[in-house]
Formats: sequence, structure tokens, C-alpha cells
Amino acid sequence: MIRFELEASDRDTRARAGLLQTEHGPVDTPVFMPVGTQAAIRGLTPRQLAETGARIVLANAYHLALRPGEALVARSGGLHAFMAWEGPILTDSGGFQVFSLPKKEIEPEGVRFRSEVDGEPIFLTPERAIEIQHALGADIIMAFDECTPYPATRELAERGVENTLRWAERCVAAHAGSDQALFGIVQGSTYPELRRRCAEELVKLDLPGYAIGGVSVGEGLAELVRVVSLTEPLLPAAKPRYLMGVGLPEDLLEGIERGIDMFDCVIPTRYARSATLFTLRGRIRLKHRRYRRDAYPVDTSCDCYACATFTRAYIHHLYNANEILGTILGALHNVRFYQQLMRSAREAIVLQRFSTFKREFLAGYAGADPAH
Amino acid sequence: MIRFELEASDRDTRARAGLLQTEHGPVDTPVFMPVGTQAAIRGLTPRQLAETGARIVLANAYHLALRPGEALVARSGGLHAFMAWEGPILTDSGGFQVFSLPKKEIEPEGVRFRSEVDGEPIFLTPERAIEIQHALGADIIMAFDECTPYPATRELAERGVENTLRWAERCVAAHAGSDQALFGIVQGSTYPELRRRCAEELVKLDLPGYAIGGVSVGEGLAELVRVVSLTEPLLPAAKPRYLMGVGLPEDLLEGIERGIDMFDCVIPTRYARSATLFTLRGRIRLKHRRYRRDAYPVDTSCDCYACATFTRAYIHHLYNANEILGTILGALHNVRFYQQLMRSAREAIVLQRFSTFKREFLAGYAGADPAH
Repeated sequence: MIRFELEASDRDTRARAGLLQTEHGPVDTPVFMPVGTQAAIRGLTPRQLAETGARIVLANAYHLALRPGEALVARSGGLHAFMAWEGPILTDSGGFQVFSLPKKEIEPEGVRFRSEVDGEPIFLTPERAIEIQHALGADIIMAFDECTPYPATRELAERGVENTLRWAERCVAAHAGSDQALFGIVQGSTYPELRRRCAEELVKLDLPGYAIGGVSVGEGLAELVRVVSLTEPLLPAAKPRYLMGVGLPEDLLEGIERGIDMFDCVIPTRYARSATLFTLRGRIRLKHRRYRRDAYPVDTSCDCYACATFTRAYIHHLYNANEILGTILGALHNVRFYQQLMRSAREAIVLQRFSTFKREFLAGYAGADPAH
Repeated sequence: MIRFELEASDRDTRARAGLLQTEHGPVDTPVFMPVGTQAAIRGLTPRQLAETGARIVLANAYHLALRPGEALVARSGGLHAFMAWEGPILTDSGGFQVFSLPKKEIEPEGVRFRSEVDGEPIFLTPERAIEIQHALGADIIMAFDECTPYPATRELAERGVENTLRWAERCVAAHAGSDQALFGIVQGSTYPELRRRCAEELVKLDLPGYAIGGVSVGEGLAELVRVVSLTEPLLPAAKPRYLMGVGLPEDLLEGIERGIDMFDCVIPTRYARSATLFTLRGRIRLKHRRYRRDAYPVDTSCDCYACATFTRAYIHHLYNANEILGTILGALHNVRFYQQLMRSAREAIVLQRFSTFKREFLAGYAGADPAH
């Protein structure tokens, strides 16, 4: 099981610094979890990933059930052994992935769809989602929810909340006796009263952590901030709060300011594949001609292997020449950038200066690459 | 400049163990040079590459002149600094690449073709090939030769030899005063008298090393062995001999047995991309179903990071799921396998048991994957 301790709370905002204890080691919060959907972080070995400062990674129960199958992972000693990641792991239940599929049938019992891998019909239920996650053996697992798209009618959002609540209860029942930490997911789209109902009912289940789901689905930063602002106060202060699928550096800071402890997102690794790298002066698109002769590192203030070793000109060349080393170095750097951002944010919270830190970071970050 | 010392010669074969001293450190021979055509080894950071035991890498003057341009590399402090490789580097002149182009005009002065990158007309001459290689600053550079395709008429092969000889003299003239080591390349296709003429004339130039070129162009192992057997005795024993573009593990052993000191080939990294990995029991195609549940490492006797950390089942999953970590781990392993093969061959030469080593290796290696 996990244990969560609050170490500091910012005076001016709802930001908090915590410590999440897991069987695979401690995690400082706020924390950003790199995404290894298929039990691999795109382009990074576990050793390289650990060097970025990442402590906990996310994998996806849905994808892993399709391929290679959770039974194989279990036989391999579980997900930690399979992917050789010694730190903690969180698995998403597949709710978000299933609801991203173009063809699916949502029934009261669960969701019907066809496998992306082999076309076979699949009926994913709360019990099955828990079964898969038990086999994978992550430290933290997620309830199976109905992720409401954006925008959504109130009716659709209401059905999402009702399914999510009933399914959460079934997840809890299926999970009895396990020592993995099961987190609930708050849905309700952008409707305050639905978010409230969903949060209040889930809190009654006394779960070890709560996530805000149904975000990062196209609602934009203003709506995201509104949803977080109205949902977070409904969640128990003593439990970790996880904002799913978020986001860009500026999104993370808004989340931290509003009391969020955990984040995950594919952005650092996905952007690395298209040569968009993060710096304290904003994002840069390294394929742009302006970097052709640039003898500086990607980010002069970064201590990652890529920045310590190579020039922008070299990495520009790699991307232009379609050398996968470009993507690898980009991923190393971007993930390190995110880890450093979270570490700096945490330090600022402990020092009671989160607002100043955020303002200064965003001012520097706005000095972005005109080429972007 | 380089210095080459012979440390041991095998009693039963022409195999030799040497030490190549360069300004970027010593290299034990026989040596296999991984190929970083565009100043990057596919999928490996310089740090990972060094961990495989690789000491010297090959890059390509032709490709780097096209992109990013040798002037940029020179301004970056040369190829060592640009690609952050602290060990020695050898650059190929571009002769092989140019002659692989479908459209080119071979003239007495040089070769005309169009850039693959931007379509611009290029006239590559011996002087220009040396100029590029001076700018790149590798420890060892190659003369600009005419690589004869296979099969070739005697007439075509003869023209190749005559051009190669005249161009070698022009390379030597253009290279005067440089401390990079310029190697000559013996052409002559499969014609013994042409190989002899080419070798004898090149030896008169008293170059610090000699390569056998015009091989690995489709002639097959039997012809390759014949060409090496008849050419190598014509080369000075005190200078390193380099067999260009070779090859598979079994090819390397045939070359070593016939007195070759240096090899390069894209095979370890290229095969890694298509999930073909080398083991002491032969090649395995890791995408095959039979590895789906295989809990062993790729090669039980290998000490590389991939073999020390992951199962075949996991790497099979990575390849099947199109995760680039599969290619990365495959490249790490394959390059390490090649380095270990060369190290074992060298030890066997020193112990006067190369023939036994070769026989034992090939016997084990023939226990290959029936799936291949």
C-alpha cells in the first residue's frame, strides 16, 4: 500500500509538497509521471529514465492487456520486472483509451469494442480492468471510469458520472484484499454540480487517492483550471490528487497552484519525436534552420546528458537526417526538463514562494522561440 | 598520426593481433568499427556505444559533406567534438557511396552526380574528398577510389584500378602536411592480376594503411575469401589492413584468418532495426512468435545492458509494439556481440589457437534459430 504525507503547504496558494511512500520507494510530490503506455518510455532505457530524475512511471492496462497480455506480464514477475523499472508504477485502467476509440458501445455493465491489435471483440468491465491491473501489479491502479468527451451535453456528462460511480463501487469490490492502491476518478465534464456529486460519492469510498479525469480532452487551459478549481476542494486533503493527462509546463504549474500532487502526459516524449524541445525560455523547434549553426546546448541551464554533451547544431542535424538519436536525446532532455520543473516547484512550495517561482518561470518561459 | 604494432601472429593462419595507436587512444586489432554514417550510430548515444567496447567508429565524408556540410562540422571543433565521440574515428571518402548512386558520370578527373539531399550538381574529385576529410578531422581518412561493382567485365575493373591509382596519387598530393592517416584502397574486382597491380602500385606510395575495397558488393563469401586471400599477401605486414564493408560474424572470422586487422559494417545496427539479433547460437529473429514467452536474455552468455536487464519476451514485445526501445536494445546487443567476437578472436590469436576458436565459434553459431 501507499502512504502519503504532506510536508509543506504554500501560504498563498493551495500548492503542497508531499511524500508518497510506495513499496518501490518514495516519491516527492508534486510529481510528473512519464508515460510508458506499452511498458516502455519512447526512446529511453530504464537507466536513462532514472537519470532524468523520474521516480514513478505510468503504463496502460488496456494496451498491455491487448499486447502482450497481462498474463504474460504476470508470468514475467509483473510489470516492474517485465520492463525493468525498479521505481513505483501507476497503471491507468483503460477508461480513457476505450473512450478514445471511434467505435464502442457503452453499456451499464461495461464497454464493448474491438481490439486494435487483432480485431477481436472485447467487453471491458470494471472487474476485468481490476483483474488486468492486479496481474500487472503496479503500485497504484485506477478505477475503470467513463471518460466524458468535450464538449458534452449535461445528459451525456450525467450518464458518465453515474456509470463512473457504479463502476467505482464494482472496482472496489473486485479489489478487496489487494495491497495495490486503487484511485478513484472524478468525472462530470465542466458541470460543477456533476463534478461535486462525483467527487462526494467517490470520497465516501475512502480510497487512497483521487484523480480528476475527463480533462485534457480539448477543453483548453481556462476550462481545465475551472474544473480543477471547483473539484480539488472536494477531495480529502490527506490523500494525493492526480490530474490525468496534463500537460504542458504552464498547465502543470496551474495544477500545482490548485493543490494537485500528480500529473502524467505523453507530451515530453511525443514532442521529442517532432523535435520540439522545452527550455526555460520556452519551447524550441529544433528542426528550424536558425539552429543549424547554434553552438549552444538545447537549454543552457539544463544538466541532462544531451545538454551536457551536444550542441543544438548537432541535434538539429540528427533530426534533419532522420537519425533516431535525435528523438532519444530530445526525450532525455524533455523528460529531464519536466522533472526539474517539478523539483523547482516543490522547493518553492517548501520555501513558501510558489507564486513568485511560478511568475518568474512563466516570465522567462514567455521569451519563447519566435520560430515556434 | 597513427602507429601500428603487431603483438602476435597466429602460427597456423595469417591472423594477427595488433595495437593501433591514435591521437584519440589505442585500438586493439582485429577491430570492428560500428558505422555512424551521418555522425551518429543508429540508436546509440556515444556513452552507450563506448559501453559496448567499441573503440573506433566510422563516419562518411560524402554524407556529412551533403548534410550538415563539413564546414559546419569543422566550426564545431571537428567530427569528434560534433558527435561527442572521444575515441578515434575513420572517415570513408565517399567512393563507395558515389558508386552506389544510380546516376553518376565517372570522368578521369572525378565523378559527377546530383545531391540526394537537395538535387544540386556535385563534382567529387580526389582533392575535394581530401578537403572534406581534412575539415572533418578523423584520425584515419580514406583515398577517393572507383569502387567496381560486381560482377564486372575486366575492362570495367581495369578502368576502376587505373582511376583508383591516379586518384590515390592526387589524394596523396592533396594530403601533404596533414597528420591524419591516409589509407589507400585496393580495387580490381575479382581479377587477380588487377588486384596485384593495384596493390603493388599503392604500396609504392608508402601509406600508413591499406584497405581492400570493391568487396561486400554482392560477390558472396567464397569470392570475398578468394579476393582477400590473393590481395592480403601483397600488402606490407607492418601496416594495418582494412576490409571495407564486411560483414557478418562468419565473414569477419574469414577475414581475420587471412590477416585482416580492421572491419566496418552497418549489419549490427541495421539488423537490430529489423529485430535480427546475434547470439553465440546463431542469429535470432526476435519478432517470431516463439520468443513471445521466452524468459531468457537474448544471449545467455552476453554481458550487455540489454541481456543483463531484459528477457527475450520483453524485447519481442517492444519490436511487436513498434517501440523504438526495441531497436535501441537490439543495437546495443548486436554491437556488443561484434565487439566481444573481436575480443575473443584477438585473445585466441595471442594464445595461438585461432583455428580452434574459429571452429568452435562456428560450430556453436550453426546451432541457429530454425525460425531464421
